[in-house]
Amino acid sequence: MSFQVSPLVQNVEFPPIAEAMSWVKDRASTRELLNMCQAVPSYPPAEILQAEIARLAQQPDMGSYTDIFGMMHLREAFAVHMSADYAGTITADAVAITTGCNQAFAAAIMALAKAGDNVIIPAPFYFNHQMWLSMMGIEIRVLDAFAEKGAPSPADAKTLIDARTRAIVLCSPNNPTGAIYPPSVLHSFYDVAQAAGIALVLDETYKDFRQDITPPHALFTKPNWQKTLVQLYSFSKIYALAGYRLGAMIAGPAMLHEVAKILDCMTICPPHITQRAVLFGLTALDQWKTGKKVLMRGRLDALRTAFNTSGLRYQLMSSGAYFAYVKHPFGEEASKSVAMRLAQKHDVLCLPGNMFGPGQEQFLRFAFANVGEEKMPVLAARLLESQP
Amino acid sequence: MSFQVSPLVQNVEFPPIAEAMSWVKDRASTRELLNMCQAVPSYPPAEILQAEIARLAQQPDMGSYTDIFGMMHLREAFAVHMSADYAGTITADAVAITTGCNQAFAAAIMALAKAGDNVIIPAPFYFNHQMWLSMMGIEIRVLDAFAEKGAPSPADAKTLIDARTRAIVLCSPNNPTGAIYPPSVLHSFYDVAQAAGIALVLDETYKDFRQDITPPHALFTKPNWQKTLVQLYSFSKIYALAGYRLGAMIAGPAMLHEVAKILDCMTICPPHITQRAVLFGLTALDQWKTGKKVLMRGRLDALRTAFNTSGLRYQLMSSGAYFAYVKHPFGEEASKSVAMRLAQKHDVLCLPGNMFGPGQEQFLRFAFANVGEEKMPVLAARLLESQP
Repeated sequence: MSFQVSPLVQNVEFPPIAEAMSWVKDRASTRELLNMCQAVPSYPPAEILQAEIARLAQQPDMGSYTDIFGMMHLREAFAVHMSADYAGTITADAVAITTGCNQAFAAAIMALAKAGDNVIIPAPFYFNHQMWLSMMGIEIRVLDAFAEKGAPSPADAKTLIDARTRAIVLCSPNNPTGAIYPPSVLHSFYDVAQAAGIALVLDETYKDFRQDITPPHALFTKPNWQKTLVQLYSFSKIYALAGYRLGAMIAGPAMLHEVAKILDCMTICPPHITQRAVLFGLTALDQWKTGKKVLMRGRLDALRTAFNTSGLRYQLMSSGAYFAYVKHPFGEEASKSVAMRLAQKHDVLCLPGNMFGPGQEQFLRFAFANVGEEKMPVLAARLLESQP
Repeated sequence: MSFQVSPLVQNVEFPPIAEAMSWVKDRASTRELLNMCQAVPSYPPAEILQAEIARLAQQPDMGSYTDIFGMMHLREAFAVHMSADYAGTITADAVAITTGCNQAFAAAIMALAKAGDNVIIPAPFYFNHQMWLSMMGIEIRVLDAFAEKGAPSPADAKTLIDARTRAIVLCSPNNPTGAIYPPSVLHSFYDVAQAAGIALVLDETYKDFRQDITPPHALFTKPNWQKTLVQLYSFSKIYALAGYRLGAMIAGPAMLHEVAKILDCMTICPPHITQRAVLFGLTALDQWKTGKKVLMRGRLDALRTAFNTSGLRYQLMSSGAYFAYVKHPFGEEASKSVAMRLAQKHDVLCLPGNMFGPGQEQFLRFAFANVGEEKMPVLAARLLESQP
């Protein structure tokens, strides 16, 4: 007799990226695919970073584990970096280095909630957030964020809270919309969470791609932010180290004490060589990172220009850091059907809105940061040719 | 008001390795510490492997993600390796590469069971297995394995199965005892699991350190093994790549379909450069690995000799691959108290039995593979000096 799998896992849809990639596996087209599906840097790591990793590889201790939360030197350096970026006070003991930001999210949720609890999350949401919550048996309370409103409302969130609510999850800059929530919105959500005695889990994976040089928010300057805020981050994008897997969580000591147990069981420690690579990156790559930010600004401008192309009926609803969220012109047609046709007939790979939650069938997500600004007119041309 | 953490996580003890390391943080002793606490290779990766990783670091695609289950080339090479080792038929589509074996276990359990279900596991058990099950809200049904019996009994396991049982978990070579279960025992457990329609999760992290050259079992030759068996493995030990984080799961396609969802949320993919390093190791390091096996044989022999030291009242209960399980001579004294004294007064760091489950207070785990064979007499001398 065959064993059974958990219905909690079975009921979750298969990972969207893997599914979308399968659409273009046996393409017949000779045109280059515009791959705007998974958010991946279009450039390799900095040459001096590659050289540093090569040097590290020959150090005998790279084969050994580090502490669960990563090396103290890295935690210190990241605390200094974040304190500067947020004009707040973040100490090394509030930092956990993780094996990517998905792991930081998974561990944060597991530390906060259990099966039968609920978590509030605006839709459209990052699909891995939904998948993990569902697989944990945690109820998702959806906050309508986009269709009419553009940004989620703290007052709406408040009405969803009950005795089993453990957290509000926000993602800013947002995946999938690219929207950057203003500090006032983030502060209001913080106040709602604090008043209810629940956590505000704030995923800021894309913070390095904001063009605004003022801090994203002042939450780290609040006294006792550790009692409410859990912040998540990824080193994958800005350093082009996605394949090397490194992320981080910033939280208070009581929270991190629990998170250590989870991370120990999930991976024991993050990859040692990646930790050393990022430690180098945090201090030696400021100029290189600024260059990438400028590059991204160029891509964003070119994308916005492309969507102004005369006759184009795909509507750019939102765009900002890394992503654009687009309304397709096919009315009631399911977003997946539209996305598959774009991939297979028009050589543009993006993700359908239905992968990002309820009420998203009219939308598509473009990871525009993946492709050069010279490709944006090509994108517009292909979208034009696909129109009904 | 501060947020609360999940009681499921809060009720779990803090990770044992981190706790044990804290005992020797501020050592006053000038003697070298015999660190037999965490299972870590005492040697760096092979020099040609270090050179290969350095070469890989300069390839621009190392910064990119791979498929969730890792690169197909690696899955294929590992399938070939395992088919040879087990004289069975394992195909690449039955292989998932993971970010270490702890992750393989965590994902396997999450795919099989949910809060309120139960899993059968012999004690003493690997602490991370217990921690993860508890944090998932899965009931642990303990099978008494060691104190009187040396190996767990399949018949005993059968009596523990009910409608909410989802799996039997075995670890062979065993952590913490070092015991290698004979094929007949493994086959009987398989039959029990198959008859009950539950999974046999078999962690074989230390399989490369068996001295026997016949296959560990013939389960992979059974028709439809995919309906019962889920096998776990780690590349950390034999390749000395612990810090690089890589493991694997072998299971049928229905199981892996669910596991993909979990791994995607936990880490997206395993570290790219580690995958390439292991791909190299699987083909180019046979001779080097044989050398390490010989080295381990020498350490095991020296350990056994050391425990025959006249007057030594620490009793070697079990030893085999990587670990030895030892009965201490302090009667009713708690194992943690004994282990702390050994660490702080006698410069020997091992783990107390209580970290491995109920009924283990008389025991200590020594990761003997961490230290050279010339250190085994030193170990005996220090244990002698510690005796009551």
